Amino acid sequence: MIQKRNIYLNMKTLKEAREILFRQFPSQGLLDTETVSSPDAVDRVLAKPITAGISSPENHLAAMDGVAVHAESTFGASETRPKVLTIGKNAFYVNTGNVLPKNTTAVIMIENVHDIGNDQIEIEAPVFPWQHVRKVGEDIVATELLFPRNHVITPYCVGALLSGGIFSVSVKKMPKVLIIPTGSELVDWKKAAPEDLKPGQIFETNSYVLGKLVESSGGCYVRHDLIPDDMNRIRQAVLDATRDDFDIILIGGGSSAGSKDYSKEVITQLGEVLVHGVTMMPGKPLIIGKINEKAIFGIPGYPVSAILTFEQFVYPLICRMLGKPEKEPETVQVEPTRKIASKLGVEEFLRVKIGVVGDKMVATSLPRGAGSITSLTEADAIIRIPNHVEGIKDQEPVTAELLRPLSTLKDTIVVVGSHDNTLDILSDEIKAHHSRLSLSSSHVGSMGGLMAIKRGVCHLAGSHLLDPTDGSYNITYIKRYLPDVEVKLINLVYRDQGLIVPSKNPKNIQGIKDLIREDVTFINRQPGSGTRILLDFQLKALRISPDQISGYENEEYTHMAVAVAVLSGAVDVGLGIYAAALALGLDFIPVVTEQYDLVIPKHHFESENIQKLLEIINSDPFKSRIEAMGGYSTKQTGKLLF
Amino acid sequence: MIQKRNIYLNMKTLKEAREILFRQFPSQGLLDTETVSSPDAVDRVLAKPITAGISSPENHLAAMDGVAVHAESTFGASETRPKVLTIGKNAFYVNTGNVLPKNTTAVIMIENVHDIGNDQIEIEAPVFPWQHVRKVGEDIVATELLFPRNHVITPYCVGALLSGGIFSVSVKKMPKVLIIPTGSELVDWKKAAPEDLKPGQIFETNSYVLGKLVESSGGCYVRHDLIPDDMNRIRQAVLDATRDDFDIILIGGGSSAGSKDYSKEVITQLGEVLVHGVTMMPGKPLIIGKINEKAIFGIPGYPVSAILTFEQFVYPLICRMLGKPEKEPETVQVEPTRKIASKLGVEEFLRVKIGVVGDKMVATSLPRGAGSITSLTEADAIIRIPNHVEGIKDQEPVTAELLRPLSTLKDTIVVVGSHDNTLDILSDEIKAHHSRLSLSSSHVGSMGGLMAIKRGVCHLAGSHLLDPTDGSYNITYIKRYLPDVEVKLINLVYRDQGLIVPSKNPKNIQGIKDLIREDVTFINRQPGSGTRILLDFQLKALRISPDQISGYENEEYTHMAVAVAVLSGAVDVGLGIYAAALALGLDFIPVVTEQYDLVIPKHHFESENIQKLLEIINSDPFKSRIEAMGGYSTKQTGKLLF
Repeated sequence: MIQKRNIYLNMKTLKEAREILFRQFPSQGLLDTETVSSPDAVDRVLAKPITAGISSPENHLAAMDGVAVHAESTFGASETRPKVLTIGKNAFYVNTGNVLPKNTTAVIMIENVHDIGNDQIEIEAPVFPWQHVRKVGEDIVATELLFPRNHVITPYCVGALLSGGIFSVSVKKMPKVLIIPTGSELVDWKKAAPEDLKPGQIFETNSYVLGKLVESSGGCYVRHDLIPDDMNRIRQAVLDATRDDFDIILIGGGSSAGSKDYSKEVITQLGEVLVHGVTMMPGKPLIIGKINEKAIFGIPGYPVSAILTFEQFVYPLICRMLGKPEKEPETVQVEPTRKIASKLGVEEFLRVKIGVVGDKMVATSLPRGAGSITSLTEADAIIRIPNHVEGIKDQEPVTAELLRPLSTLKDTIVVVGSHDNTLDILSDEIKAHHSRLSLSSSHVGSMGGLMAIKRGVCHLAGSHLLDPTDGSYNITYIKRYLPDVEVKLINLVYRDQGLIVPSKNPKNIQGIKDLIREDVTFINRQPGSGTRILLDFQLKALRISPDQISGYENEEYTHMAVAVAVLSGAVDVGLGIYAAALALGLDFIPVVTEQYDLVIPKHHFESENIQKLLEIINSDPFKSRIEAMGGYSTKQTGKLLF
Repeated sequence: MIQKRNIYLNMKTLKEAREILFRQFPSQGLLDTETVSSPDAVDRVLAKPITAGISSPENHLAAMDGVAVHAESTFGASETRPKVLTIGKNAFYVNTGNVLPKNTTAVIMIENVHDIGNDQIEIEAPVFPWQHVRKVGEDIVATELLFPRNHVITPYCVGALLSGGIFSVSVKKMPKVLIIPTGSELVDWKKAAPEDLKPGQIFETNSYVLGKLVESSGGCYVRHDLIPDDMNRIRQAVLDATRDDFDIILIGGGSSAGSKDYSKEVITQLGEVLVHGVTMMPGKPLIIGKINEKAIFGIPGYPVSAILTFEQFVYPLICRMLGKPEKEPETVQVEPTRKIASKLGVEEFLRVKIGVVGDKMVATSLPRGAGSITSLTEADAIIRIPNHVEGIKDQEPVTAELLRPLSTLKDTIVVVGSHDNTLDILSDEIKAHHSRLSLSSSHVGSMGGLMAIKRGVCHLAGSHLLDPTDGSYNITYIKRYLPDVEVKLINLVYRDQGLIVPSKNPKNIQGIKDLIREDVTFINRQPGSGTRILLDFQLKALRISPDQISGYENEEYTHMAVAVAVLSGAVDVGLGIYAAALALGLDFIPVVTEQYDLVIPKHHFESENIQKLLEIINSDPFKSRIEAMGGYSTKQTGKLLF
């Protein structure tokens, strides 16, 4: 039996919680310093101001190959009245970098010197004082400030340090972070293979992600061994850590208020809980605590919560310890492609994909759950919806914090529409041949794709919309729904659609007509998807009514999701493509071969990026990879249909 | 005797040279691959597409603590007509992360469950199917593409890889670069102290800077021992390198066309010179070559040339080998503070400081010489002046490529005007207490500072302009030159001005009157500087005419430059502050104590950043550090004078 949840007694807003954290752990003087060689100081933060030890250059140096002279000895020289100087007396050959001989103040370029023999040279133009000379201290003057405290050393700085005679510098030690992953359901990937996982077990990943984030923040980390949900063992690990030289401790998981969440109890026993619960989403169950003047965090277990709370709290703390400013994300104004409701009283970190389509920058929401790590790996930006706002409206500009450079986004080809596994291969091939280009695809069904084109929020759409009256694909729908948009239609593949059933087909399903069987549960696709239209067409032809099919009302959005539902045993059968069945080792009963095309507005069609995409589509390696998947034909691939 | 220069036979524009390079070294398949653990793959580039090994989650999991039920069993429940379910029969307690029991499709949150005893619970609202459930494959579906080839792994990706059962990945090996520093004037800093340098010797720095740039580009490097200007030894080193497994070879120095420049000859002997000379500045004497299908570069010896040619050629080549896009610099439109002429036929990389002052973004040119490494460490941005353009106009917007984030520039306090060493201390103290803030100072003399305020291109100006009629400082000039600008005047320091002479004062100079002596050479400051005005005032009082002083016409722009001129023996005496003499171990004959103030326009005065600056100026640690320098008084420091 499970306890009811505790409430979060010290729940704070993000801003309040940050203020509490920074008040408790002020930045000055927390870290020891260490001395490192100047080249090794790159990315480190100076603990002391650096003044130059020597000037650069230390002598007046020739900046050109030529002849060093006292400038005044050349005054008055001209083509008609050249001046003659004597080598060794008032003129001296120098190479670039040579010290100027005594009593010389300028260098005449070797191109402008006429050797007239007998150690004499003739010059036809004067030089002004200090011409072609690098004067003492021109670059660096001894004793002057090179870099102030808290300066972050770059590769360029190494040049200035060494030139200024500074071979080692005092830098702040990297904050040392202990990460303690906890959770009885977790398995260490170094100790088990995927096939060893028992139901409900998952691989522990957060400690590695957090560790790498610590490193990229300028700290270093140690990963504690995985600890199950056992309060005594967690407490002991924390106690040991506070006696060690760690600057920050992170307990991963167990930060919520459930019966097996021990982080709060452990911190309360050994120190003080400053904040429990922050009104951010994902990330609510965060704990901020203090034990022996050290910062300790209870980091939520869901991967997105773990990352966001790290970035909002642990990263800023590391920056403050080091005395460097937090990086500020680049922001852009984007138009959401649809309205998104958000809870009042929480600050939501909405992960979005951004499409730069024509002169619009549109944002499409990714899955909002805290468990979806791919919502972060796929995200181009984060839209923060503040506490006091109930959501964002579609087509109304809103600020997005970029996770990738804007220039990258401009080279992302946005595909919206029906899902097909060949888009994965297309994505891989385009990136392999044009590293600057990316393909970003959202799966909203064929009709959703056409609507996205109508609204101008994608570059192309994948579509397989059957016209039952003539057996044609897509053209009827384009004419009906996109009368005002000039588009091109390119075939991507022909593919087999059929019934996906468990391996060895235990219920002996033979075709569509078996869907009405009492012992058969079906999983459907969403309305507007080509597969749904195909099903409805087949049902009509067989005079089957949807309410005869158990599960007709349950919907998935991709072929793979349908296949997964079959694999998990939740349902007995779904309609989908062969590639999905094959990938998961399921059986497949072909029903029909259909046409899957790309719909491309004419003005995008002619763009350089789409032309590169079409080149890939027409290439043999792409076609071979598709044929190798099975269930596909590339006989028309790349063909312009309309 | 020195040969005349060879001409650059294969001189190309930057664009042409890049095209030649990329044509000779196409990107595909140059690098071997290696397998690394997923966490170790951060910042590496995928050699193969990665598809998920397992789904995440692999089972339907409870997303909340509560009771798992078949959703339909709750339909119709309401406050007035609660439904009763039986634990173990049609309701099962689950913790977050537990696998859903068979035949359950939703979780009721524990808060909404009323335990009514006898293993029975009552619920007052229905749940919909899959509510509070993380479905199989919700985040990751086995066999689907996680990341395409050429994807650069981030810390977030580590989470997705491990969750998808991928514990190691195939990445491209880091391009291996050999850096061979050459030059007889160079000294290895690991083998000599600054005081061991003979005249003309300098520390070799480029190999370390280039090495760190290789690392930040995604490559790894080996530094060859320093080689003097000896063609046979350089050739042997290159020959050995081409037999080793290096992907790229950089010869540092000797890339020009002088008599001791051997890079071109060595590459010609062992392979092929593709380009010699690029119409860029700095960076002209670049060599691009090929030996045994490997890229070899003759990198110019001046530090700025070395860095710029690396960034324009070697960095892009490394990116192409790895199959990742070059980072594109963020660009902004800036207004140059003055007109800058540039040579036709070369593309100049002008290093500039950027000041964000009010709503203007202004760019001030830094030293343009290729030898000035500090022109890069101090630069906020680079303005590229194309081949066909003769320069840039003042106040006419031009594109600048940022070297620091825009947000950092907005927190830079721009000081223009007279130079004083206490500004170094101010810069250090502000950065130490407010890591986000920086002080950027340009030394153009007191009048230059007032003019910068008039034009609105700085936040404050340092000034020590004496009014000889009443002995006051600055106020007369402010009233005369800034009649329309409301400003505040704050005292920074009182300081001693005097004659700076070599240690032990060998010419026994006692005062201003000695400047007219035949055996004394003087170094002056530029017109408009407070020190120049002070000198002219003193000369007038003593009825000395400028043409009586040898060197009156030679000008330097800072106190330290004057002191350096004295130290180097080029001149016998200059007028400057005590701090400059002290720093270089020179003698000092006090002439006058003067007032050095900060002129701050009222609208900047009230800004948060300037208020923070004033806090520092008024702080005891700042004043103590100044007093410790000698020659300064802080009795009025921070006082509002006007």
